[in-house]
Amino acid sequence: MIGADVMVETLVRSNINVCFANPGTSEIHTTVALERSPGMRPVLTLFEAVATGAADGYARMTGSPAAVLLHQGPGLANGLTNIHNATKAKSPIVNIVGGHTRQHRQYDTPLQADIAGIAGTVCPWVREVTDPKKIATDTAEAAAVANGPPGQVATLVVPSDCAWAEAGEPAEPLPARLRSEVSQGLVEAAVKALTCGEPAALFVGGTVLLDQSLAAAGRIAHSTGARLFGAGFFARLQRGAGRLNLERLPYFPEDAEATVANLRQAVMVGCTEPVTFFAYPNSGGLVLPNDCSRTFLAGPDANVAAALAALSEALEATDDMAVLDLPLPEAPTGNLTAEKAAAIIALDLPEGTIVSEEGITAGFECFNKTVGSAPHDWLFITGGGLGQGLTAATGAAIACPDRKVLCLHGDGGAMYTCQALWTQARENLDITTVIFANRSYAILEVELQRLGLNQVSKELDSLVSIDNPTLDFVKLAESMGVEAMRATTAEEFRDQFSNCMNRGGPQLIEVIL
Amino acid sequence: MIGADVMVETLVRSNINVCFANPGTSEIHTTVALERSPGMRPVLTLFEAVATGAADGYARMTGSPAAVLLHQGPGLANGLTNIHNATKAKSPIVNIVGGHTRQHRQYDTPLQADIAGIAGTVCPWVREVTDPKKIATDTAEAAAVANGPPGQVATLVVPSDCAWAEAGEPAEPLPARLRSEVSQGLVEAAVKALTCGEPAALFVGGTVLLDQSLAAAGRIAHSTGARLFGAGFFARLQRGAGRLNLERLPYFPEDAEATVANLRQAVMVGCTEPVTFFAYPNSGGLVLPNDCSRTFLAGPDANVAAALAALSEALEATDDMAVLDLPLPEAPTGNLTAEKAAAIIALDLPEGTIVSEEGITAGFECFNKTVGSAPHDWLFITGGGLGQGLTAATGAAIACPDRKVLCLHGDGGAMYTCQALWTQARENLDITTVIFANRSYAILEVELQRLGLNQVSKELDSLVSIDNPTLDFVKLAESMGVEAMRATTAEEFRDQFSNCMNRGGPQLIEVIL
Repeated sequence: MIGADVMVETLVRSNINVCFANPGTSEIHTTVALERSPGMRPVLTLFEAVATGAADGYARMTGSPAAVLLHQGPGLANGLTNIHNATKAKSPIVNIVGGHTRQHRQYDTPLQADIAGIAGTVCPWVREVTDPKKIATDTAEAAAVANGPPGQVATLVVPSDCAWAEAGEPAEPLPARLRSEVSQGLVEAAVKALTCGEPAALFVGGTVLLDQSLAAAGRIAHSTGARLFGAGFFARLQRGAGRLNLERLPYFPEDAEATVANLRQAVMVGCTEPVTFFAYPNSGGLVLPNDCSRTFLAGPDANVAAALAALSEALEATDDMAVLDLPLPEAPTGNLTAEKAAAIIALDLPEGTIVSEEGITAGFECFNKTVGSAPHDWLFITGGGLGQGLTAATGAAIACPDRKVLCLHGDGGAMYTCQALWTQARENLDITTVIFANRSYAILEVELQRLGLNQVSKELDSLVSIDNPTLDFVKLAESMGVEAMRATTAEEFRDQFSNCMNRGGPQLIEVIL
Repeated sequence: MIGADVMVETLVRSNINVCFANPGTSEIHTTVALERSPGMRPVLTLFEAVATGAADGYARMTGSPAAVLLHQGPGLANGLTNIHNATKAKSPIVNIVGGHTRQHRQYDTPLQADIAGIAGTVCPWVREVTDPKKIATDTAEAAAVANGPPGQVATLVVPSDCAWAEAGEPAEPLPARLRSEVSQGLVEAAVKALTCGEPAALFVGGTVLLDQSLAAAGRIAHSTGARLFGAGFFARLQRGAGRLNLERLPYFPEDAEATVANLRQAVMVGCTEPVTFFAYPNSGGLVLPNDCSRTFLAGPDANVAAALAALSEALEATDDMAVLDLPLPEAPTGNLTAEKAAAIIALDLPEGTIVSEEGITAGFECFNKTVGSAPHDWLFITGGGLGQGLTAATGAAIACPDRKVLCLHGDGGAMYTCQALWTQARENLDITTVIFANRSYAILEVELQRLGLNQVSKELDSLVSIDNPTLDFVKLAESMGVEAMRATTAEEFRDQFSNCMNRGGPQLIEVIL
């Protein structure tokens, strides 16, 4: 077998069955290998960030890696932001980047670039295939490394001559590294922190946010009276009616600090201690008070499920945390606002929906309103690189063909990876995208006000407002084969949204704010 | 003055008056500074690759840098491919990337990334501002370095606290480094190579491709009988009726090698020796015969104009190379093909047009047909990263508001940076975009045929063809405020194209092949 076939079959043996691809000439043998492998489903994207973001969404929903196929340094660069986002989400991905032949790399050709160097800036693991005979073991190792712990992006750089040369046979899967176990001493420290009588909180992140671990965290909080916070921007959270309602820290430093000002004990599980998104003049950084004791029970690499079970047992915490029956919002009417759109989404969200949210300013409304909606999963933008929402939705729909996917997106951010809509149409994915069209980088308007800079220049709009020309998301979606509609009133939006929830296939609603 | 104002005013003093920007929260002070500086024109883009590609196009037409403003590691990553392309084009750009405050970088926040590391993979010069008091001199140095030689992308990483802190006064411009002079010995070697009686060729690249140096190269070729080749993918070539018609090497190795098989002497000016774009099994790499002597008169850093003048003088080459009056193609009729569309473009191309070409398979036709068209400039995709054409056109139009810009683009590549159309509409730029809609990655179909791989899988279409769903470029353009039309016959296209050439403002024609 040639290297390309060996690589693809090794991926398949490692249980990797989907490849999001945007290939070029140096990947042509791998392209053919993807096509002819019965165990592999290739999914074409029109831009590399769609491929990498889709692999992220796929990984968050399955817990397992998809593969990605990119073309040389420029292809990798185009996919790099969503690799950054995936790395922050700790998503497992095997990222294959084709390069020139080993001989050809010495020349200053147009495409020649430091592929491994580019990958190394955001990927925890990068391997360059240096010999076709090693492609089987390199691929198996990439798959094992991707599986973690924690999940990570493993990049394999494949010179084209290693793809086309004879390369032996595929390799069997390698075991993933084991998660580190948490010591009894740390569990005892956590018990002490939570039972010493001081105001305490449990901060949880990573895989803790899924059902069983989340329930254990709830029991611990219930038995000790500790507050229970989700840390930062979650990769995936199971939530909605009948599930725990985690507290989230507010976005801005002063609000976040005020929220935790009285805490004297904080226990972190599956996450680091909370930190603000940005720093500002005179604020930002760590959020917990200086005199709050920190106990780091388990980092993202650790066996957090076992750590929570051990802590729960040591605390004899057997009662589940009460799940409040949170009221759904009233059905709104009249002109649309982000708040009204969020209320409608909350009311009509089908059970089992996967929400991929990059609403930015509108996102907070949607998250808050849907706390009592039918049980669903929520995927956040994890690395701050815009355009993750549309792409993660695409991968989540490939991962879970039986579930509805709802993508909630700001208009500014949606333009970063609008090409995702084409893949959604091509694969006939059951995704409804809601665009919150406020026609500005609204978060920047908020920041300008906070800093008192909004008075400085009457021309400032030219870098913050995106209303000239007006983006037409209906035409944009239709140009890529996605059915689309526009809502300007709450009544219109409710009709359109509930129709979309009851139908399959890709659809888009532009909500005019 | 705060750092942001110091930086912007230093740019202005260094004659940098345009900034292509896609800012975020950490660049908010710089955003305000750009807006309030009377000497600076900020141009907003909806995606970072548009900003970096536009700066490339601007630099190619002015020879001077524009600034770019990007947001953190993800913003830089999104702009990285067009920085790679600009680096290959040797375009001067001052690339400013905002980062977290120096204090905030220690935390694992969503946006935290190795900005300088990412930039360093493709930028020849990267500087991180470590003290607000240094921002003036750092900025002046970035501008000087960008100016070369050769032109290059200088990246300045600006922590947000260095933008908002008191930072003194702007700096005066620093002189750019001088180009290295070519030794008399090298000139004599070149004379010997070109006059020894063996079959010889002059390969020219970089700034040689503009009028005066190009004429000198023509005189040298004329007086010695040497063939005259343009090297590789040019950043900018002045061509058309009354100008020299350079030979170009064919794309595929076997054709390129056959073209130069009889050469025994090659002299390189402003470029390295020719090399194939890709290597293939059994072909690719260096193109010149092994027994061809190479003389490297002047690299891209050298004073190529002086080198050519010295060589011309040493050869007593006073007669200009004859400029053939090359015939224009016949006006075609009937169903459209790339060849017919190219013929129409050649016939109706206005004098002074700037052509930004990323036609890939259709591009060769367009280049060949327009050799006798009215004098014009031709900008190529230089680094192989797709989506450069639309963005370079945008920057060229900002640079040359009195000239018509024509962007010739493949449909696959145009999807990479389609967001450029919005900035074209926003700034009302005089750009006509022609999309060659063959609805496939046609270059890959050619490669599959060459390798005999097109028979391997009947499913192969799923990674090469992009016809399902059909992209509608008319709706896509309209969604971003650009007037658009579709041509299916030669007659339709000629009407539409000639209308576009006679009107101003952004327009797009989708040519159905």
